[in-house]
Amino acid sequence: MAERGIDAVLATTRHNARYLTGGYYHHFVARTGRSGQGQYLSVVGVPRDLRSAFHVGGGDEATLIERFGGLWIEDRLTAVRGVGMTVGAATEAAAALSRRGLGSGTVGVELPFLPADAFAALRKALPSATFVDATPLLGELRAIKRPEELDRLRDVHRLTAEAIRAAMTGSAPGSSTLELAASVERGVGARGAVFLYCLASVGPSMMRAPGEERWDPGHPLHLDAGAELGDYVSDICRMGSVGEVPAEARAMYEACIAASDRLRGQLAAGVPCGDVLRLGEALVRSSRWGEHGGFTAHGMGMVSHEPPQLGASPTRPLEAGMVLSLETEFRRADIGHVKFEDSVAITASGCEGLGDAGREWCSAGD
Amino acid sequence: MAERGIDAVLATTRHNARYLTGGYYHHFVARTGRSGQGQYLSVVGVPRDLRSAFHVGGGDEATLIERFGGLWIEDRLTAVRGVGMTVGAATEAAAALSRRGLGSGTVGVELPFLPADAFAALRKALPSATFVDATPLLGELRAIKRPEELDRLRDVHRLTAEAIRAAMTGSAPGSSTLELAASVERGVGARGAVFLYCLASVGPSMMRAPGEERWDPGHPLHLDAGAELGDYVSDICRMGSVGEVPAEARAMYEACIAASDRLRGQLAAGVPCGDVLRLGEALVRSSRWGEHGGFTAHGMGMVSHEPPQLGASPTRPLEAGMVLSLETEFRRADIGHVKFEDSVAITASGCEGLGDAGREWCSAGD
Repeated sequence: MAERGIDAVLATTRHNARYLTGGYYHHFVARTGRSGQGQYLSVVGVPRDLRSAFHVGGGDEATLIERFGGLWIEDRLTAVRGVGMTVGAATEAAAALSRRGLGSGTVGVELPFLPADAFAALRKALPSATFVDATPLLGELRAIKRPEELDRLRDVHRLTAEAIRAAMTGSAPGSSTLELAASVERGVGARGAVFLYCLASVGPSMMRAPGEERWDPGHPLHLDAGAELGDYVSDICRMGSVGEVPAEARAMYEACIAASDRLRGQLAAGVPCGDVLRLGEALVRSSRWGEHGGFTAHGMGMVSHEPPQLGASPTRPLEAGMVLSLETEFRRADIGHVKFEDSVAITASGCEGLGDAGREWCSAGD
Repeated sequence: MAERGIDAVLATTRHNARYLTGGYYHHFVARTGRSGQGQYLSVVGVPRDLRSAFHVGGGDEATLIERFGGLWIEDRLTAVRGVGMTVGAATEAAAALSRRGLGSGTVGVELPFLPADAFAALRKALPSATFVDATPLLGELRAIKRPEELDRLRDVHRLTAEAIRAAMTGSAPGSSTLELAASVERGVGARGAVFLYCLASVGPSMMRAPGEERWDPGHPLHLDAGAELGDYVSDICRMGSVGEVPAEARAMYEACIAASDRLRGQLAAGVPCGDVLRLGEALVRSSRWGEHGGFTAHGMGMVSHEPPQLGASPTRPLEAGMVLSLETEFRRADIGHVKFEDSVAITASGCEGLGDAGREWCSAGD
């Protein structure tokens, strides 16, 4: 914060509130805050002196926080839940900053998320404050994962991979991609996580929006899905077929996995971020289908594409606890979109695969 | 819009975008838009002349909209998906308003939802425009439901009621309220809807946040859950027990249902909104446990507590197609929180119950 000239951060998104409180968020509004003519808004206020951090929540949250096991944040403020809570919570947060002598300071807020009326209330209450976007700072805070965060990421990646495989093995030949995506959704839910999305295509079509396309025998199926568990997100892609196995698609998929595995062998703390992209690209391009190949990688955690930003900071060294999604793929007009994706956690001497369940080609049914 | 002096509305929430487009929203970001250092934002722009409506989405949405079956909105604009989309989409929307000669007009935006940076971009691009909160107007637009919306509300209420009953009949005696809530969540997901919340208490405790409390034989269990289906939300409360049935709690619950049914008998188009609250309160108060009773009712649809606002507009007559949640309850310190809740759709001559599945006391197990 000092480095960025920020005197206090006001976090208002569910994921950053959970991160800063150590996991707490009002259970009743965690899936949607919308109600009546407004929405729920809580604020986690973090000045440079952490002892003066504060939390603004609804009037009913004291009991919930007690049940959660308390918070490290001692100053708990309340705003009336219901219409106007966005303004009410912001007004409370502004007053808390003023009481701490930070009313004319530089205040970091989540500009792409903070409701417009809450921001207007902050600016009105703190006319001398300078407001800056704290989204990059909060993302950076989350870049290195603690062991319990890695556990959560391991779980959500594994269960997403399992749900994809179960959708492949449990769906009848001829199922539509919409039905396959719905099956992944149910599978994620049954495993205790929250479904986010499922991209699905049946080769040679490259259309990944679920629809009426049928998964017929002999055609490669591509399922690329995300889920969340306590705000930690997954991103997994797998391939399979029913009936006759399309040999070339399968060989291309095995090349995706092989490139990903070879890249894993070169990842460890200290490797520059730019090298991840360079090495991955070279591995995919050097394969038999190189001209059709693509590679990308991105940070994973509470937000997909969170830091480290590989392309934007190529000389930055990887650190133990960073998590990267690795995506190796080939697109050929006569075969379709063949892709493999999972995530790795960087360690001091290498990396650990997350969600390695069911990586091999899924030959389902007969 | 003319009545409120609004020249154009810019809708940015998922539910209002879906409402105004007739159901369309980008499937990949519908469950969470957060990505990298920002979030997805689309804009549905609706000037008074509907022929000049416009949609701002990501560059990949033309194909998705085509698969959806097209939109009634012909002018489709795009903003780059990824970091900065909030600002990019707002900038596109501002330019679209300018091209329509509305750049100095009164523009309705969803102030409790619109991201602060998107609002700043709108204000910068349209310095002469007046911005007002369109949340009440958009809520009002949704107050009278069309038949297909009632179908959706019927489905989501019924499946929520079924998921609650399945959680009661399928859970072992001694299950914690956390386990019971998780069972409702899985049941909602298995029925193809999205779980929102489950309040759960075991009498005589009134604590409804799921936790370690055990559902022991002879104790009344209260499960109050919400789900959504294509953004249409439910709100259902049911009671049950395992083993010995707690007779007085059950009688109180039956009094809740009886009061709700008597109230239903008095609801129809033309009844003033204030009468709903007055009649419901009188029915609960006149029961044997009246001094412990409570009653409330609220509009339901894409948002819980949406219009009609019964308390705020007491003389407004109910209209066919409005949907109300009716909540009848008793709280007694020696028994717990006994509550019944479901929703009704107002018709010309009466009302239709939504989600009437499994209303009776659930006697589960032995």
